[in-house]
Amino acid sequence: MSSKQDKRQRFIDVFPGIRDELIEYLAKENMSREAQEWYKNNLDYNVPGGKLNRGISVTDTVEILYGRPLDDAEYRRAAILGWSVELLQAFFLVSDDMMDQSITRRGQPCWYRIPKVGNIAVNDSFMLEAAIYHLFRGHFRSEPYYVDLLDLMHETTLQTEMGQLVDLITAPEDSVDLSKFSLEKHRFIVLYKTAFYSFYLPVALALYFVSPTIPEVASPESLQRAKDILLPLGEYFQVQDDYLDCFGTPEQIGKIGTDIIDNKCSWLINVALAHASPEQRAILDECYGRKDPEKEARVKKIYWDLDLVGKYNTYEKDSYEKVTGLINQLPADGSLKREVFTSFLEKIYKRTK
Amino acid sequence: MSSKQDKRQRFIDVFPGIRDELIEYLAKENMSREAQEWYKNNLDYNVPGGKLNRGISVTDTVEILYGRPLDDAEYRRAAILGWSVELLQAFFLVSDDMMDQSITRRGQPCWYRIPKVGNIAVNDSFMLEAAIYHLFRGHFRSEPYYVDLLDLMHETTLQTEMGQLVDLITAPEDSVDLSKFSLEKHRFIVLYKTAFYSFYLPVALALYFVSPTIPEVASPESLQRAKDILLPLGEYFQVQDDYLDCFGTPEQIGKIGTDIIDNKCSWLINVALAHASPEQRAILDECYGRKDPEKEARVKKIYWDLDLVGKYNTYEKDSYEKVTGLINQLPADGSLKREVFTSFLEKIYKRTK
Repeated sequence: MSSKQDKRQRFIDVFPGIRDELIEYLAKENMSREAQEWYKNNLDYNVPGGKLNRGISVTDTVEILYGRPLDDAEYRRAAILGWSVELLQAFFLVSDDMMDQSITRRGQPCWYRIPKVGNIAVNDSFMLEAAIYHLFRGHFRSEPYYVDLLDLMHETTLQTEMGQLVDLITAPEDSVDLSKFSLEKHRFIVLYKTAFYSFYLPVALALYFVSPTIPEVASPESLQRAKDILLPLGEYFQVQDDYLDCFGTPEQIGKIGTDIIDNKCSWLINVALAHASPEQRAILDECYGRKDPEKEARVKKIYWDLDLVGKYNTYEKDSYEKVTGLINQLPADGSLKREVFTSFLEKIYKRTK
Repeated sequence: MSSKQDKRQRFIDVFPGIRDELIEYLAKENMSREAQEWYKNNLDYNVPGGKLNRGISVTDTVEILYGRPLDDAEYRRAAILGWSVELLQAFFLVSDDMMDQSITRRGQPCWYRIPKVGNIAVNDSFMLEAAIYHLFRGHFRSEPYYVDLLDLMHETTLQTEMGQLVDLITAPEDSVDLSKFSLEKHRFIVLYKTAFYSFYLPVALALYFVSPTIPEVASPESLQRAKDILLPLGEYFQVQDDYLDCFGTPEQIGKIGTDIIDNKCSWLINVALAHASPEQRAILDECYGRKDPEKEARVKKIYWDLDLVGKYNTYEKDSYEKVTGLINQLPADGSLKREVFTSFLEKIYKRTK
């Protein structure tokens, strides 16, 4: 087994204990067996089935900061913070799928599409979010950084919801209006809907976790430096995602991209709009976001004509250099180790190859 | 203007400032104007339109505990806690209406039924919840009881969601199975779905608020005593609601009751099930939860035959005596003043007369 698989397995092995702890709370409160079983199914179906990169990056970051492997008790506590990120994501995905009327998620039907679940999925998503705070209280209430964990999680939650709102009203699937799009709006959506919770949150949780031993890493300045590196990194990650949706092979991305057909506020369309001639713009207005493969092909042709591949490569290079520059500004022997960020960078920039 | 109307107006007058504060945060974060406007409409449409009893009971309780009127600055801070209860309720109502596919709420179409809103209402409900923590952080971060506010709000949120889940799976509108009902389950639903957030939460918030001046009222024992009184009070309130749905006049309750037709896990059906003969039980199984006025009438006939009016009157008397007994156990000159509870009791038990 590779080290990556070992790491993933160690993280996954913590989940049943977390789930059972939540169910035991419901049992203690005399909730009906049927409802306990329901919540168990909700947790099992929606939380552990993804790539788990966000959650695992919490424990990874803690190990890098400590500069040594974690013993089992330490690991479990750090992994609870990792699972809190996965719970937050599950809360968003279950509800996003309802709002988008999606069909499948992670290779299985979306939770709300399970016949007996239906609209109850709304309340189920709430209970995934509430699990975070129940776990925090059970495991971190006496820590000096407890209140910081809560503030961080609240702020990140609101930021993600703000990003989701702008995305929903800018790019509704059934009503195309490209005049609503802009690179500025794209940037807001990417930072708020993805980068804060996927990149800054896991690292910030890890910084708080180690702060009793290494207090300087969770100072306001240190948190700000981490944010200043991780947000551009997250922005690049999402631009890459947008790029691969159109220019990646189905083998690379594991699905067939539908961003053009779905009227997504993607980096590609926003760059295209910024460079399109009046004639090209007219075609984009006519063809973007339509359920018609021929129109999709006409949009793609414009992407090629405008050399979006070249523009993406330039963006990628600039972005890599910018993030590397920021990382290299960190003191080489400081507590906020460069490796925290280079480990992210390597995983992500490797994706295209 | 009556004193009650003055009080209500003073509370309502705080809301625009709260709303603007939230919108200013979005503006500061460079969220698009369209999205700021959207959130403003979400807040205005869903938060202030109800009876506001829960929110006003926070400021009322603070005044009782201090034993004097509040100046404007104090009032505003206490009212923010009051509005946090109304925000929590708005979060639940917007989403409940989607889950129940309700048509109207507070005399206007449910938010999700506004054509351009639709499923975005899910994310909008999240942003009502998130507003609570943003406001707490802005106004109470430096208070010694800040973390207690957060823990209390989280616990209450999870409790309400637990109650909602049991209600949803016990009494789905489209699938009647009276064997799932029981007085025990009814009690769980009532306590968790209603009593914690409507009765205990407002008073507990007020106890924390005054705790810098009157620390003993927010001791674990004092909070427990408050809970021991307020939960039975909330339980009675909901039983009364169930009773009035069937036996109140439309003038009394401002609507025509539909609990029987909607398969609600009401106190009445649970008491009926506990006393029904096999013949009556067969009729209840056949007629409860059906969209048919004749079947509804047959259920109502059984309610009369089983003297549910008499049983309710006995329940009400016992409940009143129980709560009064608990209130009278409080030291007459203690900081946790009896008036906190008698003021609730009077408002509620008066409802029937």
